[in-house]
Amino acid sequence: MLSHVVLADPVALTRALVDIESVSGNEAEITDAVEAALKAAPHLDVTRVGNTLVAATSLGRPQRVVLAGHLDTVPVAGNLPSRTEGNIMHGCGTSDMKSGAALALHLAVHAPAPKYDVTYLFYDCEEVESERNGLRKLAASHPELLAADFALLLEPTYGLVEAGCQGTMRAVVTTRGRRAHSARSWLGENAIHRAGEALARLRRYEARSVEIDGCVYREGLNAVKIGGGVAGNVIPDEAWIEVNFRFAPDRSEEQAHAHVREVFEGFEVAVTDSAPGALPGLTAPPAKEFLAAVGRPPQAKLGWTDVARFATLGIPALNFGPGDPNLAHTREEHVEIDKIEAGAETLRRWLVGGEC
Amino acid sequence: MLSHVVLADPVALTRALVDIESVSGNEAEITDAVEAALKAAPHLDVTRVGNTLVAATSLGRPQRVVLAGHLDTVPVAGNLPSRTEGNIMHGCGTSDMKSGAALALHLAVHAPAPKYDVTYLFYDCEEVESERNGLRKLAASHPELLAADFALLLEPTYGLVEAGCQGTMRAVVTTRGRRAHSARSWLGENAIHRAGEALARLRRYEARSVEIDGCVYREGLNAVKIGGGVAGNVIPDEAWIEVNFRFAPDRSEEQAHAHVREVFEGFEVAVTDSAPGALPGLTAPPAKEFLAAVGRPPQAKLGWTDVARFATLGIPALNFGPGDPNLAHTREEHVEIDKIEAGAETLRRWLVGGEC
Repeated sequence: MLSHVVLADPVALTRALVDIESVSGNEAEITDAVEAALKAAPHLDVTRVGNTLVAATSLGRPQRVVLAGHLDTVPVAGNLPSRTEGNIMHGCGTSDMKSGAALALHLAVHAPAPKYDVTYLFYDCEEVESERNGLRKLAASHPELLAADFALLLEPTYGLVEAGCQGTMRAVVTTRGRRAHSARSWLGENAIHRAGEALARLRRYEARSVEIDGCVYREGLNAVKIGGGVAGNVIPDEAWIEVNFRFAPDRSEEQAHAHVREVFEGFEVAVTDSAPGALPGLTAPPAKEFLAAVGRPPQAKLGWTDVARFATLGIPALNFGPGDPNLAHTREEHVEIDKIEAGAETLRRWLVGGEC
Repeated sequence: MLSHVVLADPVALTRALVDIESVSGNEAEITDAVEAALKAAPHLDVTRVGNTLVAATSLGRPQRVVLAGHLDTVPVAGNLPSRTEGNIMHGCGTSDMKSGAALALHLAVHAPAPKYDVTYLFYDCEEVESERNGLRKLAASHPELLAADFALLLEPTYGLVEAGCQGTMRAVVTTRGRRAHSARSWLGENAIHRAGEALARLRRYEARSVEIDGCVYREGLNAVKIGGGVAGNVIPDEAWIEVNFRFAPDRSEEQAHAHVREVFEGFEVAVTDSAPGALPGLTAPPAKEFLAAVGRPPQAKLGWTDVARFATLGIPALNFGPGDPNLAHTREEHVEIDKIEAGAETLRRWLVGGEC
């Protein structure tokens, strides 16, 4: 049970959530605790789907926003229970992202009359394969529960606003040749040498930097794996390069695929994996007011996050959370306590105009 | 037992040797049979070392030549016992190289007074790793038994003279970089892209063709394997290319290594495997007379054979045998009977000046 005292204090609440171990797949206990706290708030309609919770106000406001966070963590690395030293709270999930989830839960319980209608979302299995992701599943089964004008994902950004996200795709570029004994190499065609032509294109490739709503998205096209060869005395007849293209959100997935095929024109290209980017969506009125509450310019999110799932639903979304993204998934994971307090204050300023 | 009738007929003798299964490691029975035949010839001194036989004349001739062949075969592929259809004898070892060994054994028994002293050599484990090779072992333990002015290796050449052999070496070229998340690729250095520079050098590489004693040795420098990569979202910090350099016998192994290091200057290069080439050695008097007996110009041997082991001992050596090298190690292995007869006649013409 999360007590009233704990729910009233985002720092204590972070610590309480961290101390309920919730490695992906083991979220039942933490979800029960969060559900009980939400259900105790009479201004919220609470729906539970598996280990995903949706708690919504229904105040008839003209705009609705989502505050979202996942409750799962990567595997514990000898870093539980939490411990606090001065301004630092150590422990698995402190940064990614129980400090963010604590801000949402604190506001859910303590802000009965926010400026916008708010949908609070707590979900499971973000740290594992996309198939199990609670947000992905809810968007597929109950998209109506996610309807909103703007979404804020409380992933670690160290108190900055990170807008939208890059798209990502992988493709395998295959080259062919003809086998021959390497003592008579001129009778064959070397597929690995041919792969060198594809690598030359990657070396010459000039990646774009695209500014969207003041955020600069820097693209990248890279070989991430390579393989080929038959035996030490055979001219190889096949080689392959796996490439990863991180693209700015002004390209659709289809445009990104077409671009990669164009770069490797003349080669066999098979797309193996793809996820769209998300536009920063800074023009929605609640986004503008949120940026004003933060008081700092937004930055482009370089990487892929669940904001892209909101973008796919047509909902502009930003990343904002107290944790340091560079500490996520590390044994040394921690959060700065004053970042939790500052984050709570920013959200209050935005949602209720002051204390709550 | 190989009967007198069989020993007198190189074709029958080939068939008899083929029908004694002798996959590498299982040469005892065939060696026993060959040893008995050699020991029955009073003009030969026979030495057996393991499953390697040396049978030498001692006529006091001013020149000594070696006739050499291995008695082992690659694994049987449903192609034993032998069978004959018209001019074709089918079966494992017919081409590589029991037809060649039969020529040597026939002459050993039936040419008591050749023009040169002759050392007949029959050895084991040629088709497996160099460590087990009977010729290699004999050269190390009893080099005096191999002393000669010229050597003829009866490997399949389809009745042509193939002179000397290319050297071969392998090296691994490694490239290094710095890992980074592929969403922020500019923070890393891509080792696979760097490997593309090494491949560009291979594509630009112009291989030499070297004429030695009228034989043209065509070199080749090729990637035979490539690998690298960490994960689909990581800029790789290491990649490697295995290259195979086949070099003309005017380069020593050391010179070949230095050449490859020069081609890949600026990269890490580790030599993993190396064997010297063999000069054609066509100027030795017995070699000239052998070429006259064949009556056709020699060709460069493209590939590596045990002639290089003779070259290392300072003995010029040629390849000459009735089998078709392209059929070696195939399920369809066979030899043309008239090539066996023609080979026997050539050797007789050279060693005894006519019939024997």
